[in-house]
Amino acid sequence: MKFELITKDPHTRARRGRLHTPHGIVETPIFMPVGTQATVKSMTPDQLRSLNVEILLCNSYHLFLRPGHETVERLGGLHRFMAWDRPILTDSGGYQVFSLSSLRDISEDGVRFQSHLDGSTHFLSPEIAVDVQMALGADIIMILDDCLAYPASSFDAEKSMRRSLAWAARCRKHWKERSAAEPGAGSELFGIVQGSIFPDLRRESAEQLVAMDFPGYAIGGLAVGEPKPLMYEIIEKAEPYLPAEKPRYLMGVGTPADLVEAVALGVDMFDCVMPTRHARNGWLFTKEGHIVIKHAKYKADPSPIDPSCQCPVCRTYSRAYLRHLFIANEILSSVLNTIHNLHFYLDTISRIRHFIEFHRFDEFLTETRRTGAH
Amino acid sequence: MKFELITKDPHTRARRGRLHTPHGIVETPIFMPVGTQATVKSMTPDQLRSLNVEILLCNSYHLFLRPGHETVERLGGLHRFMAWDRPILTDSGGYQVFSLSSLRDISEDGVRFQSHLDGSTHFLSPEIAVDVQMALGADIIMILDDCLAYPASSFDAEKSMRRSLAWAARCRKHWKERSAAEPGAGSELFGIVQGSIFPDLRRESAEQLVAMDFPGYAIGGLAVGEPKPLMYEIIEKAEPYLPAEKPRYLMGVGTPADLVEAVALGVDMFDCVMPTRHARNGWLFTKEGHIVIKHAKYKADPSPIDPSCQCPVCRTYSRAYLRHLFIANEILSSVLNTIHNLHFYLDTISRIRHFIEFHRFDEFLTETRRTGAH
Repeated sequence: MKFELITKDPHTRARRGRLHTPHGIVETPIFMPVGTQATVKSMTPDQLRSLNVEILLCNSYHLFLRPGHETVERLGGLHRFMAWDRPILTDSGGYQVFSLSSLRDISEDGVRFQSHLDGSTHFLSPEIAVDVQMALGADIIMILDDCLAYPASSFDAEKSMRRSLAWAARCRKHWKERSAAEPGAGSELFGIVQGSIFPDLRRESAEQLVAMDFPGYAIGGLAVGEPKPLMYEIIEKAEPYLPAEKPRYLMGVGTPADLVEAVALGVDMFDCVMPTRHARNGWLFTKEGHIVIKHAKYKADPSPIDPSCQCPVCRTYSRAYLRHLFIANEILSSVLNTIHNLHFYLDTISRIRHFIEFHRFDEFLTETRRTGAH
Repeated sequence: MKFELITKDPHTRARRGRLHTPHGIVETPIFMPVGTQATVKSMTPDQLRSLNVEILLCNSYHLFLRPGHETVERLGGLHRFMAWDRPILTDSGGYQVFSLSSLRDISEDGVRFQSHLDGSTHFLSPEIAVDVQMALGADIIMILDDCLAYPASSFDAEKSMRRSLAWAARCRKHWKERSAAEPGAGSELFGIVQGSIFPDLRRESAEQLVAMDFPGYAIGGLAVGEPKPLMYEIIEKAEPYLPAEKPRYLMGVGTPADLVEAVALGVDMFDCVMPTRHARNGWLFTKEGHIVIKHAKYKADPSPIDPSCQCPVCRTYSRAYLRHLFIANEILSSVLNTIHNLHFYLDTISRIRHFIEFHRFDEFLTETRRTGAH
């Protein structure tokens, strides 16, 4: 996987890059909207393209259970299935197995779990996680890791981190073998740094993964309940052990302010359900902070969500109409709110890129901290 | 209101016309999708325009209760509120008062009812119904009528029809006075023929309304449970009493085959929730009959809903994907299914127009009856 580093900010660790995938180029830093069940909830692919969405994240766990990765493969792969012609990243399913399913039975071999949908029993191993993701045909796939709840003791965190390393090695071996056998397959496998909030464990995880040589590296196991300053500290301490010439992906993060902070610490890629989930709950981002659209004070408010926003929703609809749609439980409420919130995230990413390009990202970071927005 | 009759089919009563409204021209025959709460469920205005939707129906009853017609008026009217720049027809609210609300108290003056939303008490009179619709700013507004359940005795039907006539006269008077006082108002008021399944009552209703001279005439009180042949018979017998130079609107009808049959009987305008409601329930129209997308047989079906359909959904997605979205309860399921079903209706209307223009509508009618489709 080719990753170009275009420029670096001179005052922070922020990087401006370009990731080449079989389905096109992704400019970094990048935010990936989440399309859990092969759809970004309420959005058509046309709407996502209009928002300049460059890459989506889809959840293997959900697609493995329904409609099944083999069904998707028979139908021509995930891109064709959901009519999305730009890059897709899939997670391994590990996080959902640990957070959504019940009756997990974890061994060195893998994890047996019961579906949150119908209670049926399934087994996920490092090799199966790679097979599922390659069947889906994602451009970037992730290793299966052992996902630890927060807080955890250093003993448990070390044990979990070592299991994740062992699984990472098996994922890599299986992926290499399959890629050699099917040269056109095209999926690139990222490693995931674990180690909870313990810098020594994070360092060991990173060094061992880098020794295995992955096309990219994720930082996992954060944004799981730990205080924000601790999350930033862990990123800051893990980052120096990741190779500069490979993309870094902070999984499941976060608020727009989190994106700015993490970019300053050298992160290139993000995904989070926050813009889309908050949209459906009527929680809308603005440069002056969020608004909760159901509030009665918006009943006859003719102004847009954010007067400074250039998105098609703010150019077209009043807060009063958006409140009406939300109160009336109309589907269009989710559609329009999602367009606005995704635009907000992608606009934040766009501004991040521009400030890095002009070597003034530190100013944007300072401004973001000062306004306390988002 | 200018209504041009472009041509008539020589073998049936089918007409091809053009209705001029303050928000543009509507070609007839026309199908109006229903946007009950100031939104066609799950559709953006852009998507409706892409489908060549020419005019929407919105429900006064719902908008009167929430967000309130006065709120909509303060925000610039319904067109601006919902960002729909093409024509809008509103119903009077009568039908919903009789079908949705509880504890109705009907007098000659009007109807007192309790909101289906919160039980609050409201009053609707002929004058208020006109005021509500003029506040919304619809291009075409409807008289308040007394809506009778089916079946009804001829005694009840006559009483109800006479009350509707009295209300029609009051609506017309109030509308004329307001239009004279506010020349820019622009709403055109249609009368509604009532009389249940009794041809004599239908005739009297039509003649009395025509004597009042409305810009257009609707046939109401059908598709309320009576057999299809009876519905067609009533239309056939009422139509000769309606002036040829005015548009005729059959309220709340119907299936695609109903549209074809009613056009053959001289009807110009239709509205129905069927395409949009069925879409959300996974009931999809095809030229070979409908399909129920949740069926297991579509799990891995790579074909489109209807191989002969040119809609963007059929050109892009498999039945397998649409089934997956439906089973997974995804919002995009409603969006894509609605696009397909509305396209089916509008394509039917488009074909109806073409066959009338070529004076071969009888062939289309025969073919529709032969295939029994829809």
